[in-house]
Order: sequence, then structure tokens, then C-alpha cells
Amino acid sequence: DLSFDPKEHQHLRYNPLRDNWVLVSAHRMKRPWAGQVEKPPEEHIPRYDPRNPLCPGNTRASGEINPSYDSTFVFENDFPALQPDAPDPGSDQHPLFQSKAARGVCKVMCFHPWSDVTLPLMKKEEIIKVIDKWAEILEELGATYPWVQIFENKGAMMGCSNPHPHCQVWASSFLPNEPAVADRCQRAYYQKNGEPLLVQYAKQEAEKKERVVVENSDWLVVVPYWATWPYQTLLLPRRHILRINELTAEERDSLAAIMKQLLTKYDNLFEVSFPYSMGWHGAPTGPCLKDDNSHWQLHAHYYPPLLRSATVKKFMVGYEMLAQEQRDLTPEQAAEKLRNLPEEHYKTREN
Amino acid sequence: DLSFDPKEHQHLRYNPLRDNWVLVSAHRMKRPWAGQVEKPPEEHIPRYDPRNPLCPGNTRASGEINPSYDSTFVFENDFPALQPDAPDPGSDQHPLFQSKAARGVCKVMCFHPWSDVTLPLMKKEEIIKVIDKWAEILEELGATYPWVQIFENKGAMMGCSNPHPHCQVWASSFLPNEPAVADRCQRAYYQKNGEPLLVQYAKQEAEKKERVVVENSDWLVVVPYWATWPYQTLLLPRRHILRINELTAEERDSLAAIMKQLLTKYDNLFEVSFPYSMGWHGAPTGPCLKDDNSHWQLHAHYYPPLLRSATVKKFMVGYEMLAQEQRDLTPEQAAEKLRNLPEEHYKTREN
Ligand SMILES: O=P(O)(O)O[C@H]1O[C@H](CO)[C@@H](O)[C@H](O)[C@H]1O
Ligand SMILES: O=P(O)(O)O[C@H]1O[C@H](CO)[C@@H](O)[C@H](O)[C@H]1O
Repeated sequence: DLSFDPKEHQHLRYNPLRDNWVLVSAHRMKRPWAGQVEKPPEEHIPRYDPRNPLCPGNTRASGEINPSYDSTFVFENDFPALQPDAPDPGSDQHPLFQSKAARGVCKVMCFHPWSDVTLPLMKKEEIIKVIDKWAEILEELGATYPWVQIFENKGAMMGCSNPHPHCQVWASSFLPNEPAVADRCQRAYYQKNGEPLLVQYAKQEAEKKERVVVENSDWLVVVPYWATWPYQTLLLPRRHILRINELTAEERDSLAAIMKQLLTKYDNLFEVSFPYSMGWHGAPTGPCLKDDNSHWQLHAHYYPPLLRSATVKKFMVGYEMLAQEQRDLTPEQAAEKLRNLPEEHYKTREN
Repeated sequence: DLSFDPKEHQHLRYNPLRDNWVLVSAHRMKRPWAGQVEKPPEEHIPRYDPRNPLCPGNTRASGEINPSYDSTFVFENDFPALQPDAPDPGSDQHPLFQSKAARGVCKVMCFHPWSDVTLPLMKKEEIIKVIDKWAEILEELGATYPWVQIFENKGAMMGCSNPHPHCQVWASSFLPNEPAVADRCQRAYYQKNGEPLLVQYAKQEAEKKERVVVENSDWLVVVPYWATWPYQTLLLPRRHILRINELTAEERDSLAAIMKQLLTKYDNLFEVSFPYSMGWHGAPTGPCLKDDNSHWQLHAHYYPPLLRSATVKKFMVGYEMLAQEQRDLTPEQAAEKLRNLPEEHYKTREN
């Protein structure tokens, strides 16, 4: 009888934040790849482009002119998916044809005045400014909206249509699907175990070490046990924190440091500006501010698509869309690879 | 006060098969696109390629030689994500580190001996052969496995690594996430309403007409009310049918006809071989064959990524991954566009 080896034998792993399973089939990395090869990310981006609507001093689609900003800069998305004043679709509805009102605000946040930097190439002090702005926006929009989604699409491969370093913030009048499930799962875990799911999880991972990528006194980055994307990571505070605006000055400093470390490793993995989508999840806001949200723990998800090289990604397609997500290396293999990468960025090493 | 117009005003729609919501923001189609442009699908594929492991008479990675097949041809995937004999990961488990055994079989099914055809370019009689083979495999693998996922990844954009027309069949010892949710939703609906969800839905859509793309006496193709992908469709029988092997000879004939119609329209939309992932969902099999599965209705999902043209797709990224899926045109707009396309394939029209 064979003994179980996660690198050789496919198995299922449970995702306690989404209450579902991922199929881990690490032996699939052995198959040759004859499929689509992506365009490598553009390497030579001008620091200032007079036609780029995100650069300081330029005019945007709305006709507005950007200030000559020298740190972060926030403005309303000129083509928002959510607007504050959409009318209600009405409620005379068959159970199979249900619609609901959706209201909200979409903002864009530039990280830096230069187009040719990314977070890992920014100074720690500059990243702290980004974190401060995230906290400020969460507080501002979270005063009324129940969910404020801060997210970054990095790289053309992830649908990002502008190379200038930026993220987006979409605040909505409803709790979207993903946080709704995370809320339900964390609540049930807390009721059963008396401690927040992700607080317990961070403690366990800090002891086990095998999935840890980087850590400091306040924060931990792991490839979660249930990761679906090849090099997916979860960024967790050690302390119990509900929302990003609760971070102390010290925690913002150590967060900037660990983000720089993680993102430098990501870029170093295939020596390319690493594409990903990332976003923050914390306790709901608006009307939920008055509820007990002790079951929540602040965290960020990083979902990078690359699998084999700078130009070959993991396709989440047929089986994944119709049946279940599947991964081709174990989370432990991914964590080890990231952990062992240098802490200095390949671009600054070259200079 | 504004009156609600789904083409102008964002709103949420409920997906009763997944028990979640999609954000419809049709006004977003107005934004310009400066992001990633895909490589258009390859147009000149040789009918026979001596190096293609899927062609008749060629040798595969395993060393096996394909027969000189002249219709469909099924073989075991040479790099399977599921194998029949993986050992059990064991069960001494913390609730946050749960794993389970996964066993199964992965097969590949070639649709046709020629590499330069696709389903819409095949004769109806040839498509019937594919349907017969699907029914046969479902019966064979479904005798023991609880779930048999038949799916097709079409086009390099959807991770397909071989242009030869083919699909895959992955049978598993577990009920995967997506069908598990569809099972739960259909069961709850049936218990409450006394009729299967998708049987009622097909009746409603056949009356309403605004989301119908094509229909015949046995089948209906709609852009579902809750579609997430821009031109997503749902293929439904009118009769209550649990599994694909229950189709009569007449129903296989009319299914081949409607598939050819739908896929021809898809190709005609941007005059390109339209990429998609599709798959069949029917009542679970194996140990579930003895259960009452009256709440199930057989159906196929088509998930095509293209949004604006042959080379610009919809990116399901940041907001979609972290919060909720979002679409940029209404399902009714998509259905109307597909419905009005010619029934003759653009390639045969050219000749
Ligand atoms: O098995 P294939 O066609 O090589 O691989 C393709 O389909 C699989 C099943 O959807 C996916 O897991 C792969 O990411 C994709 O590239
Ligand atoms: O708003 P952007 O950056 O133009 O658009 C990008 O992010 C959005 C939010 O994740 C997605 O809906 C779009 O598909 C993607 O291209």
C-alpha cells in the first residue's frame, strides 16, 4: 500500500473562508505545455506620459485636470460600475427573475506620481502613505456603505488597462457574494470555537512554518492551506483587528515593510513585474458598524495567475468553472519557492 | 424621479442555481478600452499534423498509438488530474487543515478525425456521434463515480492547448463544488415549488422570449437572466430529463441541430472561432443513482470570455474575484445580438 504524499497524490483541501474545496493535483506540473503563451508585461514605461489620464497634471475623460500630486491621489472613476443614484428595479418578481437595487461609488487611487514604479519598487514611507489613504477611504465610504472593496488589478494579464501604479475602491449598498460567504463562515467558526477563524489560523501557521512566506512581529504572509491560484497568498495580522483603519502607526509601518518584501519576492519569482489581483477584506461597515463583528479578522488576498513562467499562467477554465478549482503544485511547494527567493528586487540588483 | 432602465441603471440579479448575485452595469460598455488585446485564434490549422498527439495514427506521450479513427475517439488523459488509486490523506485533522481523498478518471474525447473542423463546422450527423459518445461515457463512468464532468475548453484563450476538436471527461469520487451548489439549490426549489427549477425556468423563458437565442421543439438556448459572462448561454431541454444518456434518438438529433445553430451564431458574432468553456450538468450518478433526483434537470452551460471583439475579453479580476461578478451589457442585449445573427457560418458563406 502506498503512503500518502501530497506532491504525488491528488487530494481535496477544504477552504474554511469559502466553505468549499480545491483539488490539488501536484503531479500535473509534469505535463508539457503547448498552450497559450502570454505577452510578457511591458518593461519600459515612461515616468510621465502626457496622454496617460492617471499622471499628475493631465486631463481625464471627464474633462477634469489632475493636480500635480506628489504622493497618492484619489478621484472618482470616470466609468463607474456603481453610481450613487440608480433607481430601484421594483419588486413584482417571480422567484427565478429576481433583481435588486445596487448603489455605490467607484474611486481610483494612484499610488505614486510616477508611472514607472510599482509598490515593491516604492520606498517604505511611500507605501505607508498608500496604507494611510486606504484607511481614510474605508472610514469615509464605510460611514454609510456596508461594503468598501479596496482592490488592485496589477498587469495587463489581470485586466488592468493603465500601467500607472493604482488601485480601485468600489463601495456598495449591498454585501457582495464573496464577503457574504466569508462573513457566514467566520461567524459559524467563531460561534463554535470561541476564537476568530483567521486569528486561530495565523497562530497555527506561525507554528507550522511550512506555508509561511514572510513574517514580522505584526504580520504573516502564507500560501494558505486551501490556495487555489498557484502562488496565492494571504496576508494576516497577528493581533485581532476588524478593519484597516484600526491599524496603529507601528502596524502600518510593519505592513508596508511586509508588503514590500512579499511583492519583491513575487517580482523575483519569474523576474518580471508579477501580475495579480489583490484586495482587502475586513468587517462590514455602514449599518454593520453597530453590530458585533468579533468573528471578523482583517486580511488581504493576493491572487496571481502565473504558473510556470513569466508568460504561462494557470487557466481556471472548463473543469474549474463547471466543477471545482484545481491546482498543479502544492501550497507548501509554492510557499517554499517564494520563501527562498532573494529579498532584493531583481531590478535594483541589476543597477 | 428616474424610471428604471436595466440598460442604463446598474442593478443586481439573482442566480438561483448558485444562490448568489451578479452586478449588471450595462452603462460600462461606454468606457474606452486601452487594456490587453488577445492574440486572435489561429485561422490556418492543418487537417492532419504528424506531431499532433490527437490526430489519427499518431503516437501520444504515453507511447500509445491512436487508431485511424473516423468519427469520435476516446482515450485516457496522459496527464490526468484524477487517478483511480490515490491513497487517503488520513483524517487526524484540525478544522482549518482538512483534506480528503480524491479519486477518479480523466478522459479525452476527439470529436472528429480532422484538426481543421470545430463543432459548428461539423455535419449534424457527426455531432450526433459526439452526443452518443457523451451518453455512453456518462453511463460507463457514472456506474461507479458520483460525478462525471463532461466539458470542452475551446480556444487557446480558454487554456486549450491543442487545436484538434476535442472535449474532456473528468469523473470523480466526490461531488465537486459547482454541482454540489446546483444540487442544493435545485432541491430547495423543488421542495418549495413542486416543480424542477429549470423546467419552470425554461417554460417562463419560452413565453417571455427576450432572452431566447435559438429554440426547437425539444430544446431552448437562452442567455440566462443571471448570466455573468458577456455571451453566456444555458442550453435546456423542454422535457424533464435527468441525465444525457436518457435522451431519445429524436432528442439527440434536435440537440445536434441546436448546438450547430448556437455555435454558428457564436462564431458569427465576431467572425472568429469563438472561444468558450462549456459543460454538462445532470443528476449525480454512482451511489446517487438509487436516490430520488427529481429536482435535477439536465442542462449545459456555455461560458465564453469575449466581450467587445475577437480580441478583447471580459476580465473577471479584482472586484469579481474579491467581491462579486460584474457584467457590462444586459443579458437581454446579449440575447438580442446573438438571436439576430445569421444561421449560416461565416466560413462557409465565404466559399
Ligand atoms: O487538460 P488541459 O486541456 O491541458 O488543461 C486545461 O484544462 C484544465 C481543466 O479545465 C485546466 O485545469 C487547465 O488549467 C487548462 O489549461
Ligand atoms: O476598471 P478597470 O480597471 O478598467 O477594469 C478592470 O477591473 C474591473 C474590476 O475588477 C473589471 O470589471 C474589468 O473587467 C477589468 O478590466
